Amino acid sequence: MSLVRVHNFSISLDGFGTGEGQSADEPFGHAGQRLHEWAFATRTFRTQFGSDGGGRGVDEVYAAADKTGVGAEIMGRNKFGPQRGPWENEEWRGWWGENPPFHTPVFVLTHHPRPDLEMAGGTTFHFIDATPEEALEKARAAAGDRDVRIGGGVQTVRAFLAADLVDHLHLVVAPILLGRGERLWDGLEGLEERFDFESVSSPTGVTHITGTRR
Amino acid sequence: MSLVRVHNFSISLDGFGTGEGQSADEPFGHAGQRLHEWAFATRTFRTQFGSDGGGRGVDEVYAAADKTGVGAEIMGRNKFGPQRGPWENEEWRGWWGENPPFHTPVFVLTHHPRPDLEMAGGTTFHFIDATPEEALEKARAAAGDRDVRIGGGVQTVRAFLAADLVDHLHLVVAPILLGRGERLWDGLEGLEERFDFESVSSPTGVTHITGTRR
Repeated sequence: MSLVRVHNFSISLDGFGTGEGQSADEPFGHAGQRLHEWAFATRTFRTQFGSDGGGRGVDEVYAAADKTGVGAEIMGRNKFGPQRGPWENEEWRGWWGENPPFHTPVFVLTHHPRPDLEMAGGTTFHFIDATPEEALEKARAAAGDRDVRIGGGVQTVRAFLAADLVDHLHLVVAPILLGRGERLWDGLEGLEERFDFESVSSPTGVTHITGTRR
Repeated sequence: MSLVRVHNFSISLDGFGTGEGQSADEPFGHAGQRLHEWAFATRTFRTQFGSDGGGRGVDEVYAAADKTGVGAEIMGRNKFGPQRGPWENEEWRGWWGENPPFHTPVFVLTHHPRPDLEMAGGTTFHFIDATPEEALEKARAAAGDRDVRIGGGVQTVRAFLAADLVDHLHLVVAPILLGRGERLWDGLEGLEERFDFESVSSPTGVTHITGTRR
């Protein structure tokens, strides 16, 4: 059965999935790269960024799971870019260059749709104004028998959790305190009644949390 | 050198150290006993409550560390009891019966001091209206060459962390989402610059986090 999956979603000890002050230079605002240092040290992410090497321990095992069997992604507009409100122009083509790491259809949730954006390597961005349920229906149709990834950011993951549409949740808690930004956990009291949580600490200092929907 | 230590301080995944609605029947409000189930399953806590048995794995190792070398405790008034404001009477003698598990002087921070309360087993409650620094000075004097425990609740631990008075921090993250209550982490941005954090996941589902002050 096709699953809805969240992978490699990093949060701080105090539960922030991103900092304050997103900009074109700082996708995660004042958090900088601190939430994702664990990831940049893995083979999977280094390969994605064109580098050799990288760790192949427990962090890599979790990181690589993201890459298997996904046929479509759903992301929020704030993951796609730093703009807010109506598009001033359509020059922005995402943070990832001309060959984004998705290689599938990607549905970008926005109240301001724009034409599809076909990139190299199989990624096409579709901009849709839709509820989580509607977006998931489109993504499932695009994914065929493969799974759907909910790619973030914080508001999008939280909305899909609140709507009980997530089957597999993989979070990575980084040992930092951001103090401000967007909290993943707001409004999710009692989520443990719907998920079996498991925690695995890595020698690198992060803790991997998986939530398997019951 | 005498250290200031926090032990066995449980928080939810979303960072709450206690729930909403503290009362004489529910010291942790709507959280009930859920934050501390891991502890009640350990030998140390079972012994404290007069029961046999209990786990002796990693949770017990952490739980027992609390009991060694402590010469005084500082706690907030909300750990001592559910009352707020001026004491209506002095009948309340804590949650722990006539032989509390502290066996040392205990300094209770309150804006409403009352006479010392001498209990069985070596525990004496001293009610003081003091800053964290002033309270620590009294507790250190009482502890001699032993350590001082900061016993909670949330506001007290947070105040001592904010004042940079904690040397050793042991937290236990329980895999539940309380959604409301008192957050431990508020206002502590950048705490990782003062502490080396280490995480150890337990097979029971909780994650132990220790912070060693640099």
